[in-house]
Amino acid sequence: MSRSINLAVIPGDGIGPEVVTEGLKVLDAALDGTDVKVDTTTYDLGARRWHDTGETLPDSTLVELREHDAIVLGAVGDPGVPSGVLERGLLLRLRFELDHYVNLRPSRLFPGVSSPLSEPGEVDFVVVREGTEGPYVGNGGALRVDTPHEVANEVSVNTAFGVERVVRDAFARAQARPRRKLTYVHKHNVLVHAGHLWRRTVERVAQEYPDVAVDYLHVDAATIFLVTDPARFDVIVTDNLFGDIITDLAAAITGGIGLAASGNVNPDRSAPSMFEPVHGSAPDIAGQGVADPTATAVSVALLLDHLGLPERSERVLEAVGADLGARGSAPRSTSEVGDALAARVTP
Amino acid sequence: MSRSINLAVIPGDGIGPEVVTEGLKVLDAALDGTDVKVDTTTYDLGARRWHDTGETLPDSTLVELREHDAIVLGAVGDPGVPSGVLERGLLLRLRFELDHYVNLRPSRLFPGVSSPLSEPGEVDFVVVREGTEGPYVGNGGALRVDTPHEVANEVSVNTAFGVERVVRDAFARAQARPRRKLTYVHKHNVLVHAGHLWRRTVERVAQEYPDVAVDYLHVDAATIFLVTDPARFDVIVTDNLFGDIITDLAAAITGGIGLAASGNVNPDRSAPSMFEPVHGSAPDIAGQGVADPTATAVSVALLLDHLGLPERSERVLEAVGADLGARGSAPRSTSEVGDALAARVTP
Ligand SMILES: CC(C)[C@H](C(=O)O)[C@@H](O)C(=O)O
Ligand SMILES: CC(C)[C@H](C(=O)O)[C@@H](O)C(=O)O
Repeated sequence: MSRSINLAVIPGDGIGPEVVTEGLKVLDAALDGTDVKVDTTTYDLGARRWHDTGETLPDSTLVELREHDAIVLGAVGDPGVPSGVLERGLLLRLRFELDHYVNLRPSRLFPGVSSPLSEPGEVDFVVVREGTEGPYVGNGGALRVDTPHEVANEVSVNTAFGVERVVRDAFARAQARPRRKLTYVHKHNVLVHAGHLWRRTVERVAQEYPDVAVDYLHVDAATIFLVTDPARFDVIVTDNLFGDIITDLAAAITGGIGLAASGNVNPDRSAPSMFEPVHGSAPDIAGQGVADPTATAVSVALLLDHLGLPERSERVLEAVGADLGARGSAPRSTSEVGDALAARVTP
Repeated sequence: MSRSINLAVIPGDGIGPEVVTEGLKVLDAALDGTDVKVDTTTYDLGARRWHDTGETLPDSTLVELREHDAIVLGAVGDPGVPSGVLERGLLLRLRFELDHYVNLRPSRLFPGVSSPLSEPGEVDFVVVREGTEGPYVGNGGALRVDTPHEVANEVSVNTAFGVERVVRDAFARAQARPRRKLTYVHKHNVLVHAGHLWRRTVERVAQEYPDVAVDYLHVDAATIFLVTDPARFDVIVTDNLFGDIITDLAAAITGGIGLAASGNVNPDRSAPSMFEPVHGSAPDIAGQGVADPTATAVSVALLLDHLGLPERSERVLEAVGADLGARGSAPRSTSEVGDALAARVTP
């Protein structure tokens, strides 16, 4: 009996296609010796598509994407696309339409990787960022635009349903980790309505997880601890915007955004989850074969775990750790790194 | 002819009164030899007042505060006050009522001060945080509270009037500094309405300041640069919430929140500006005489500058720099630090 993974691939723009090629190489290597086959279908979405056709995400493509088991995305965007067009029209539309309510962002300082912190300690935490609510809902508007009387509003929408499901996910993840610590991050002293919904929800769900230690930080204080004592964190759960901000900071202290992976996860599996490196399309280095595919490889590890192959996922992470630890000063090409990772992954 | 500064003092709770005493000592020393006298009136506001009377900021007190030339605040709050009560009812109410639209937060890594960054470089920038708009307006609400159908919204309100005035202030500050660089920070790829108002405003005002170099960072990227290359920043202008977050991070990389000062400034002088250390009331160390009054001294420097005494302001900053550079490992009491600063300030 063999299983087949129906994978949608969105290589995107800039370095996106380059890193995705290596990510798929690593995925193949990780599945070597299993009965799992991967069928990929490539979708042409992103800046090039938009320049050519004006389309960001046609409805028919969304229907097709839904039929897959998962999605791998490289990176989209180039400086010629106005700000917001691909973000709202493609990336966020996918997260919202496919109900990616758990935006999963692990931060681990692998041995041998340098951090801007002088004493980072052992950093190994995961941020569970809410993905379908908060200030990201697109519920804003403006009037008298471009006049001295313009008013521009943005609404953060938060629901008991939406907060509870992501908080539950975070508690379950915390319980499955050795340290069993959950930190929730918000700003409930100022954003009192949204913040108190988060607070009440965490406090209620916490009663079902007496073995998980819970603490709270205001988002501003969280940025302080991320640079003074990142080792204190295990699982962090937070709102969509706060999660966006603190995960970039978390990436910076663990070797940079070039190593940061993410999973846009639909834990209910009512639609495919999507895995992508956090870095962008980096037009300045595109086409030169110098982009680091490591973040894509780690995203592939998240994909494997989501597909029920935790042992293969772990193997990819071990390969990444070994490769990072063995890096010398000589630069390697994108495909050299991909080959090295694939070789370490192959059983 | 002698001038008199009519100063309202809100010592507050915890270490607030302790650091304010030293701050006023430094202020007196800085004015020594000038014709400027300080008259202080102390206002009892904060957690203790709230516990005793249920009041946060009575209207009559607000009327009195308005009559002053400036306000110095220590810190308010204790763990017995529910989250949001003093923040919204006192601190934010003061900022909104007194139209403190420039929330000024300098970040300087003084020689001899240790940073969690291994290579911080020369850090000396100022964040101009908008103080009267954005997600802080208190324009939120919730329905079906504490049921599975709760919806909690928070509205970020941004106006052409409000954005333009703070952006103008930031450009003027950037132009007066040697490097003449302004970085504006937002998230205009997601918060498109508010973000594009900010963007258009910065681009328009920039035309009047051709000698100021302008760049833009998404708030998530700004947190990265704050730890990888803080020396790149000169003046940062940003929204109320983003400013809250990045100034705590900025404080962390320049020696901690114990050194961070702030001015809640009304540049139009239609109401008094307020100067306060960013640290809180720190109940755990209150009453022991061990709190560091340095952030309050730097806040006093901001006050002196605001009152048209830039040379005295500079003298306080020099005293702070000298004191920090000369610190040994022996702990000093709050008043010892205050005395040392006052002695260095006195001409
Ligand atoms: C590109 C942008 C829409 C996105 C976000 O803000 O979520 C990015 O910053 C991220 O973190 O994935
Ligand atoms: C106490 C709180 C209301 C305040 C804020 O969020 O502005 C504080 O964090 C600050 O930065 O002054």
